[in-house]
Amino acid sequence: MSWNISNQGLTAETLLNLESIFALGNGYLGVRGNFEEGYADTGIQSIRGTYLNAFHDVIDIPYGEKLYAFPGTQQKLVNIIDAQGINIYIGDEDEAFSLTEGSIVSYERSLHMDKGYSERKVHFRTPSGKELKLHFRRLVSFTHKELFAINLTLEPVNFTGAIKIVSRVNGDVSNYSNPNDPRVAAGHSKRLSVVGCGIQGEYLHVENATMTSGLRTACVTRHEWDGSWTVEAQSNDLAGEVTATAQLTGPLQLTKWNVYTDTLRHSDALVETGIALQEGLKALTFTNLLEQQHQYLQDFWKTSDIVIENDAQLQEGIRFNLYQLLQSAGRDPHSNISAKGLSGEGYEGHYFWDTEIYMLPVFLMTSPDLARQLLLYRYSKLEQARDRAKEMGHSKGALFPWRTISGTECSSFFPSGTAQYHISADVAYSYIQYYLAEQDNAFLLEYGAEVLFETARLWMEIGHYHEGKFHLDEVTGPDEYTCLVNNNYYTNVMAKHNLKWAARSFEILHSHDETGFRALTERLGVTAEEVAEWSQAAEAMLLPFDEKLGINPQDDTFLRKAVWDFENTPKEKHPLLLHYHPLTLYRYQVCKQADTVLAHFLLEDEQSDETIRRSYDYYEKITTHDSSLSSCIFSIMASKIGYHEKAYEYFIETARLDLDNTHGNTKDGLHLANMGGTWMAIVYGFAGTRLKESGLSLAPSIPSGWEKYAFRLTFRGRLIAVTITTGNVKLELLEGEALSLNLYGQSIELDSSKPVVQPLKG
Amino acid sequence: MSWNISNQGLTAETLLNLESIFALGNGYLGVRGNFEEGYADTGIQSIRGTYLNAFHDVIDIPYGEKLYAFPGTQQKLVNIIDAQGINIYIGDEDEAFSLTEGSIVSYERSLHMDKGYSERKVHFRTPSGKELKLHFRRLVSFTHKELFAINLTLEPVNFTGAIKIVSRVNGDVSNYSNPNDPRVAAGHSKRLSVVGCGIQGEYLHVENATMTSGLRTACVTRHEWDGSWTVEAQSNDLAGEVTATAQLTGPLQLTKWNVYTDTLRHSDALVETGIALQEGLKALTFTNLLEQQHQYLQDFWKTSDIVIENDAQLQEGIRFNLYQLLQSAGRDPHSNISAKGLSGEGYEGHYFWDTEIYMLPVFLMTSPDLARQLLLYRYSKLEQARDRAKEMGHSKGALFPWRTISGTECSSFFPSGTAQYHISADVAYSYIQYYLAEQDNAFLLEYGAEVLFETARLWMEIGHYHEGKFHLDEVTGPDEYTCLVNNNYYTNVMAKHNLKWAARSFEILHSHDETGFRALTERLGVTAEEVAEWSQAAEAMLLPFDEKLGINPQDDTFLRKAVWDFENTPKEKHPLLLHYHPLTLYRYQVCKQADTVLAHFLLEDEQSDETIRRSYDYYEKITTHDSSLSSCIFSIMASKIGYHEKAYEYFIETARLDLDNTHGNTKDGLHLANMGGTWMAIVYGFAGTRLKESGLSLAPSIPSGWEKYAFRLTFRGRLIAVTITTGNVKLELLEGEALSLNLYGQSIELDSSKPVVQPLKG
Repeated sequence: MSWNISNQGLTAETLLNLESIFALGNGYLGVRGNFEEGYADTGIQSIRGTYLNAFHDVIDIPYGEKLYAFPGTQQKLVNIIDAQGINIYIGDEDEAFSLTEGSIVSYERSLHMDKGYSERKVHFRTPSGKELKLHFRRLVSFTHKELFAINLTLEPVNFTGAIKIVSRVNGDVSNYSNPNDPRVAAGHSKRLSVVGCGIQGEYLHVENATMTSGLRTACVTRHEWDGSWTVEAQSNDLAGEVTATAQLTGPLQLTKWNVYTDTLRHSDALVETGIALQEGLKALTFTNLLEQQHQYLQDFWKTSDIVIENDAQLQEGIRFNLYQLLQSAGRDPHSNISAKGLSGEGYEGHYFWDTEIYMLPVFLMTSPDLARQLLLYRYSKLEQARDRAKEMGHSKGALFPWRTISGTECSSFFPSGTAQYHISADVAYSYIQYYLAEQDNAFLLEYGAEVLFETARLWMEIGHYHEGKFHLDEVTGPDEYTCLVNNNYYTNVMAKHNLKWAARSFEILHSHDETGFRALTERLGVTAEEVAEWSQAAEAMLLPFDEKLGINPQDDTFLRKAVWDFENTPKEKHPLLLHYHPLTLYRYQVCKQADTVLAHFLLEDEQSDETIRRSYDYYEKITTHDSSLSSCIFSIMASKIGYHEKAYEYFIETARLDLDNTHGNTKDGLHLANMGGTWMAIVYGFAGTRLKESGLSLAPSIPSGWEKYAFRLTFRGRLIAVTITTGNVKLELLEGEALSLNLYGQSIELDSSKPVVQPLKG
Repeated sequence: MSWNISNQGLTAETLLNLESIFALGNGYLGVRGNFEEGYADTGIQSIRGTYLNAFHDVIDIPYGEKLYAFPGTQQKLVNIIDAQGINIYIGDEDEAFSLTEGSIVSYERSLHMDKGYSERKVHFRTPSGKELKLHFRRLVSFTHKELFAINLTLEPVNFTGAIKIVSRVNGDVSNYSNPNDPRVAAGHSKRLSVVGCGIQGEYLHVENATMTSGLRTACVTRHEWDGSWTVEAQSNDLAGEVTATAQLTGPLQLTKWNVYTDTLRHSDALVETGIALQEGLKALTFTNLLEQQHQYLQDFWKTSDIVIENDAQLQEGIRFNLYQLLQSAGRDPHSNISAKGLSGEGYEGHYFWDTEIYMLPVFLMTSPDLARQLLLYRYSKLEQARDRAKEMGHSKGALFPWRTISGTECSSFFPSGTAQYHISADVAYSYIQYYLAEQDNAFLLEYGAEVLFETARLWMEIGHYHEGKFHLDEVTGPDEYTCLVNNNYYTNVMAKHNLKWAARSFEILHSHDETGFRALTERLGVTAEEVAEWSQAAEAMLLPFDEKLGINPQDDTFLRKAVWDFENTPKEKHPLLLHYHPLTLYRYQVCKQADTVLAHFLLEDEQSDETIRRSYDYYEKITTHDSSLSSCIFSIMASKIGYHEKAYEYFIETARLDLDNTHGNTKDGLHLANMGGTWMAIVYGFAGTRLKESGLSLAPSIPSGWEKYAFRLTFRGRLIAVTITTGNVKLELLEGEALSLNLYGQSIELDSSKPVVQPLKG
């Protein structure tokens, strides 16, 4: 059961959230879990959506007062051609299958996370009493990225007679907008127009173009009818439609094969390309597709699954999160993982630091090829990051955009946007982590070093020496309730790491590949003198420390501010950002999310365990976790410190955030970063996994009430199984060469001959 | 000559700026100095404008990301019905009078600052060679606020024959917009529509309504023809027009009487009111109007004139500035002085702190009745300031808007908008200054104390004690290149003064009027305990001081930042705000304008002269004066310190800023704050005038090269003449009772029997 997400909900709000929960995707194409027949006149709100990762329009950003270098335009993920539409009419009376006309005898919807498809089984009775069973199965193929397929089986229960199916491919689509929620787009809902629509042989095809970005996308659809159907196709300016009629005397089937192409990834002849792809798929049946999905997912789960025994709810939650991460991750240099994956339009499809800090770690140690793809995306945007640095007044270096799709800054509110310079250190960190996980010198030479060098240069541009320490002024750290500060601990320590590893990479490559090293450093104009400056700045970096409290202050003046009056802030005033002006929030010691605590997780060796613990105690009291990026980090750090109950409480908040809609906005899409955070809360938190230059280390504990949990890690060509019970830790080398790793601070040797089993500590 | 601004400029750029320079106004109505006939197809850009102070529309403020309590709408001064239009056609060929067809034999335009009108004399030759002289005189009446009158005399030079005049009143008007300049509106140019237009007896009338605010305005126009004219009137949906023809054999005249009414100040029946006003004016000739203007200005200059001998350029500059201040100051509770007065649309007609800190001081000591009007404006917006404080999360107090017309916050970029909480202290300061100048206890009881109490409460709301000192966090001081800081010296010291005087007013009123005092304090719920808290906070207010440099740091961390690289910033990168992202500017020690230095001017007794001098030396090096509010303050403080040459250099930059268009944007309107600053640079700067609880003091010096300057001051019912020559200071009591004042630190007695003459020091 824990491989399935099942649901019988049919209320308005449930359905809206379930559209996100039952979204299918493959990193390229995403389809929300809408009903094929729609909700007709039920009054149920629907965000009907199909998305291609990175397929966007460009829209103007409006400002009341536009200052210099405020971005003039942004990108926006566009809701594209809708191929979900299938309407069914029953009997000679043409009684429509719908939620409101007639009645639902039974209903269930499931997402099969082991098999890669969703299904909907409905036992329906028409107003006149005709009963039939409908079985929808749908998948977005992991192996044929352009393909979204729907299989429908109709089976009469208490009648025989006419049946009619109208299947549509609709180019007349809009985005969702809500002017009252800053987390959702406020306007610009119509961004696509139909540039072609027609019928070619057995194919319906619709081609749309964006209003401004010049991108185009097409959907080519083939209907495969099982049984004796009379089929007629027609099209108008906006949509193509197939009407099929038959006599329903026993089970009948339709498979709708929809292939999406776009000008970011395919040739200009989108429809022709789509048809060619369709022709290639003709050898396959829907059953074949299901088999391919199953195979793909077996491979995925082999390295990625986490087993939690005795807690079906959590088991479901963690698998769901991993499955959605898989569905969301871009696999080409155009695309990354948006804050909502491909499940909705929240945050307009933008990519944030969420990828590097919250999601990439999962792939890094379960599917390194996907991690590598995400890194390549950032590399492909390096030139734009250089341009942005110049635009911001820096003579060199690269400043990655706070939010973007195609690489330019899309943030219109710089205090909690562009000012989050730490994103450049976060990107650098992800390259360092990849190096630590894979020790891939060639990748470092070809991609990583350049990113590290250019981001290091950024810190040299904004930093300066003051009384012997290297200061970074006027930035915003991760905590968006405190903006535009000097020496944010997170930013400084991450920049220090960035600078150190830029210098380190220079050394590594020098000894690894002299020729490549020369070519690279000459191309970038990096000299030993410059590298020495990086090392010196890293060494001298100011890491704020408060002697009295024994903690790292979030920034130079944070601890001098008044503490927010939590006691007199009623519950309905949360999340604070929806009830207080940012200026008022900035004035107090109050954190939206982990900031210094996150820095202590990412770079734990920079401070003593005591400082880390005291800081945790301090910041926990003033953190609201109004961001979904917070609880998982507090869970991990609670585990580290030994606050096991707290660790578990925080974990619980993350594990089913979307399944239980605890943040109230799952309708706008899933919280992908939090999903990565769940995995980290287990692997980094409970199991105490760390990835450092010294190698892999673990220090597992087990939450009270759990009997056993298990997960797997890929590491430098190995696959390692980790099983933790209330009594023991068991490590097995499933693939790859023997290695040393660190367990509870002790080095151990692990080879494939036998597992290492040790008693659980702590 | 120095009472006239004369100009012969006819180039495109000159004319655009001159439209602002030759703007006429009376605090209610303003008309830009456009040509009656327009610029036809000359390609010369024109901002043709007529404005009623505070007459605005409400427009939505657009945001890419709208956070809580960001203002949803703002007000915008609206360009209203155009009554300037007069076109002249010469001869049977109907040759138009214009700058391009035909030729200009001679041309001069003058603004008569002693007589209150402008004139334009043109000797014009048509393409066919007909010559005539045109003489336009126009005025906006100081005594009939609704009246804008144009008098035109036509005189043939080398021909006799037909002449035709078409005079229009045009309701089809728009505002100017420029999407590329943050100081000018970017859109929303069409805000008015015509709701009525017609002819009633001898009157043309046009009535317009705003799109959103629901305000209406009407123009009722009467043409007074001198000579034998055939006149025909007509109107369409948008405009009324009179066409008159005559034989031009000798001088002929037209006077166009335009009366503007609006629903802010008049009854709903705007046209009827306008006609009634016109009827009342019928007893007057244009000559009578000129006489009234002259009389009004005699009264004005009697208390306000500054004489500078031996420098006609400066004399012209200072008079022009004072004249424009007079033209701009609102005289009713709806209106104040916008940043550009009534001369243009820059900053959308908004009122800023400019009034209290830069303009009101002039009126305070020359025309206290006008000063009082400006104070009443702020009082009338107190309720909205209370609402805004609540919206910002404060439980009590009043937060005045950074920019506004009708009282609500119009700033869309809060870091250099709403965050400038100091505006509330600035407003409080202006009430304190008025009290010091007039010692009007009744006014303090009725208006001032309430403002002081409510603003004091604001500081208690945002302030908190830290290590025994009272801190004010997360505000922006006057310097807009440094935003969102803790303990901005300017803000803290002004808040201290605010708190102190709130407590002081409580005492004063207690002893002045027990009954009134009880009623007021009970209505506001102010108790002795609360007042004690104000005094305590004032006493404990943190005023940042750097021991090493011996200066007041601009804020807690200002001195720890890197100093801007002025040396490598090329001239074309100024003003910096048009070439650098605000974040980049915030990161450095670089000031747009006087901040701490301004605080040292406003509250000089808070620091030693040495600290003030060292601070001046420090900040001068890092201040760009990119704001027009800066040079005048540096001039004043240079005078105080004894840097006489510097004082004069800064003064020179202010005195003719608009006349010489040194900031390059005079076309968008005049820089009214700087105009007040010029007066202050002389009176507060060179003459060392100060207004304190102890009374009036002077410490005059004279710029080298000047032989004599003189000005007058009103003070507690007196009129005092101050004359400074290279040898002496002469003080004369022209009106009022004898008084003590302070000259060079010594108390002197001044009575009307004879002047006090003392040798000039310094």
